[in-house]
Amino acid sequence: MSTAWTSRYALRTKGITSSAIRDLLKITQRPGMISFAGGLPAPEVFPAERFEESCHKVLTQNAASALQYGATEGYEPLRELIANNMARYGIKAKVENVLMTSGSQQALDLIAKLFINRGDRVLVEAPTYLGALQAFDVYGADYVSVPVDENGLCTELLEAPLRSGPTFMYVLPNFQNPAGVTLSEGRRHELVLLADRYGIPIVEDDPYGQLRYEGEHLPPLVVLDRENLCRDNGYSIGNVIYLSTFSKTLAPGLRLGWIVAPPDVIAKLAQLKQGADLHTSTFTQFVAYEVARDGFLDKHVKLIRQVYSERRDVMLQALQEHFPPSVTWTHPQGGLFLWVTLPEGLDIKAVLNSALEQNVAFVPGDSFYANDGREGSRHMRLNFSNAQPEQIREGIRRLATAVKHHLAMGQEMPIGV
Amino acid sequence: MSTAWTSRYALRTKGITSSAIRDLLKITQRPGMISFAGGLPAPEVFPAERFEESCHKVLTQNAASALQYGATEGYEPLRELIANNMARYGIKAKVENVLMTSGSQQALDLIAKLFINRGDRVLVEAPTYLGALQAFDVYGADYVSVPVDENGLCTELLEAPLRSGPTFMYVLPNFQNPAGVTLSEGRRHELVLLADRYGIPIVEDDPYGQLRYEGEHLPPLVVLDRENLCRDNGYSIGNVIYLSTFSKTLAPGLRLGWIVAPPDVIAKLAQLKQGADLHTSTFTQFVAYEVARDGFLDKHVKLIRQVYSERRDVMLQALQEHFPPSVTWTHPQGGLFLWVTLPEGLDIKAVLNSALEQNVAFVPGDSFYANDGREGSRHMRLNFSNAQPEQIREGIRRLATAVKHHLAMGQEMPIGV
Repeated sequence: MSTAWTSRYALRTKGITSSAIRDLLKITQRPGMISFAGGLPAPEVFPAERFEESCHKVLTQNAASALQYGATEGYEPLRELIANNMARYGIKAKVENVLMTSGSQQALDLIAKLFINRGDRVLVEAPTYLGALQAFDVYGADYVSVPVDENGLCTELLEAPLRSGPTFMYVLPNFQNPAGVTLSEGRRHELVLLADRYGIPIVEDDPYGQLRYEGEHLPPLVVLDRENLCRDNGYSIGNVIYLSTFSKTLAPGLRLGWIVAPPDVIAKLAQLKQGADLHTSTFTQFVAYEVARDGFLDKHVKLIRQVYSERRDVMLQALQEHFPPSVTWTHPQGGLFLWVTLPEGLDIKAVLNSALEQNVAFVPGDSFYANDGREGSRHMRLNFSNAQPEQIREGIRRLATAVKHHLAMGQEMPIGV
Repeated sequence: MSTAWTSRYALRTKGITSSAIRDLLKITQRPGMISFAGGLPAPEVFPAERFEESCHKVLTQNAASALQYGATEGYEPLRELIANNMARYGIKAKVENVLMTSGSQQALDLIAKLFINRGDRVLVEAPTYLGALQAFDVYGADYVSVPVDENGLCTELLEAPLRSGPTFMYVLPNFQNPAGVTLSEGRRHELVLLADRYGIPIVEDDPYGQLRYEGEHLPPLVVLDRENLCRDNGYSIGNVIYLSTFSKTLAPGLRLGWIVAPPDVIAKLAQLKQGADLHTSTFTQFVAYEVARDGFLDKHVKLIRQVYSERRDVMLQALQEHFPPSVTWTHPQGGLFLWVTLPEGLDIKAVLNSALEQNVAFVPGDSFYANDGREGSRHMRLNFSNAQPEQIREGIRRLATAVKHHLAMGQEMPIGV
């Protein structure tokens, strides 16, 4: 069917097609399917009772404001709570450094809108968060990719890409989506120094930072940028824009994220946000404030850590138990994902099809690369937060069956085919 | 203060500056101020109790889904409820024609993203909704403006502008923001026929359609497009994209709007929405569904009509009582706004300053014109939904004092100055 609209799509939307992941996630709704494909929190840990008390309080005491239009920058008590929480991680942000967004995804969209001209290069990790690529693509971004290893972004490979003059670097330092790796402290220092030397600012995306299951918390780039470079402009936010969200600590259904940036950047982003959706739901902001306050968020994050850390351990153990030695995987210190590397020569799409036949799903690695997916053709992203431990054991068993089937087939084929 | 970011703003943001209205709305927070400036619903009519019951129900029965990530297109039962509601106004949309958005403002942003290339012309009414201009500006829209009169868009002036090949027309047929005028039935037919003749599609923005206080409901353009042109493509949605929202019937703090469009356009918009914010809050969608269902929305809309219609009448009467005969105003049959025209020669900014000194606020008309504001220099937009009747009487009295003061000064000045 065609209408007067069909011939009018703007040039910028040419490359935008339904992502393979969207189609995949529909398949994972099938009954009996064990899905490691999504990035969903465990619904068992949603603090539904606390939400209910909070809704009651907001609607009996404050309905006239909570249901009304609000400020584009966000609900001030919530922005203040966020600033105070971040201070404990060394991030010295004031309320005017914080812009509430409709999830972190909107933060990426607004940043792309503000900074990316068609053809501008963005420096991204390989692999990186797919949603960021989707947000940047529509504004015509080109990419320069730098690999990650077990210690995160390979900073020793950064100088040449930085000399090519990217508009900014997009980095996920903690328990990266998709690879589950964490940028080491040494590399954090190096990254911030290189960023300063080449004058290339950093977007630090940190949705999972609080979900650490082992090891010590490492300083955010936004903190090192201030400390290493002795910035003190009264706001202590300089060349690093920092993003985070309540999606992994409270509930993704709220769609509440935030941007921490210098006030002049916040002012510009707020102007763009006004044109994009006026402001984020006042109601969800009032409710999130009531839920999070008085120390509840901290207590709740401890519970999430406990639940997810168990699931991670169950998945690591099951991988160990069922997978052959030719298959390797990352050991995430936190977050929601781990990253499996298969031996060379396997066709990841064929492995996925076999897995789906076994009623288990994962996202093939090629989706997470900016330029082309070939580097990712040996990888699987596995989510360990959503499925329950018993499902994780069973799912990894099924997945191993699918992988072993293809490994066996691969051995029958001549090398190089 | 300047950072590495400051020099990197994308070209598209060059013209984007803080709007005069945003600054004005801050002033209206002053205690004692009576504001006709905003477009806020009356908080007294927010159905807080129904919201509370609904939150309770959602969180006790359905928290695992309501707090989780959801589909980009929106919560299906809500989309179905919307489709059923619209059917009573003759709009034969199926669920797959409806995309939930984060308020109607996001609908405008996504439509602009999908259809506007830099330099494309959009045909808009003069005056028109400021937020639409903000949404379109950032994608580099140019404009061709066609005046409205008491019967809405002057369709007899449309042919030349349509020959110039705009990408689409943006029209608010009911109780238009800012002028409060309604497109007559005859002109609706004419508009749809002209759109078809010149092959220029229409974006029909209808946030206020249900808030009619007198006269008969008029058929939406999206309905006439089907009927007049005998379209029947199985979906009955052709060259008109229709927008509406719960902001004026339930609560703007939810940020819930929707787009009705052909399925191929919905698919493209959903892809763009995924990159923009993944999806609109599942929680607010579940809650809005529970609030609206079982006929509550209809009953509630009746209450709103009663309250706003009284406020409109109070404002019309106070204008009659206090303003000199040289001042005229529109008589809106519904909606939230009326539009006052002052005699030529008055400086509207000076009138605004005097009004603010008297602790009463309005938005000067020049903000609502696409190309330049000179046409609007004699107009004031007055909102009658937010202030209570006693405040409306007092506010109009104060406003009349300010206007009369300037009229008296004007008479002392030589003509033509």
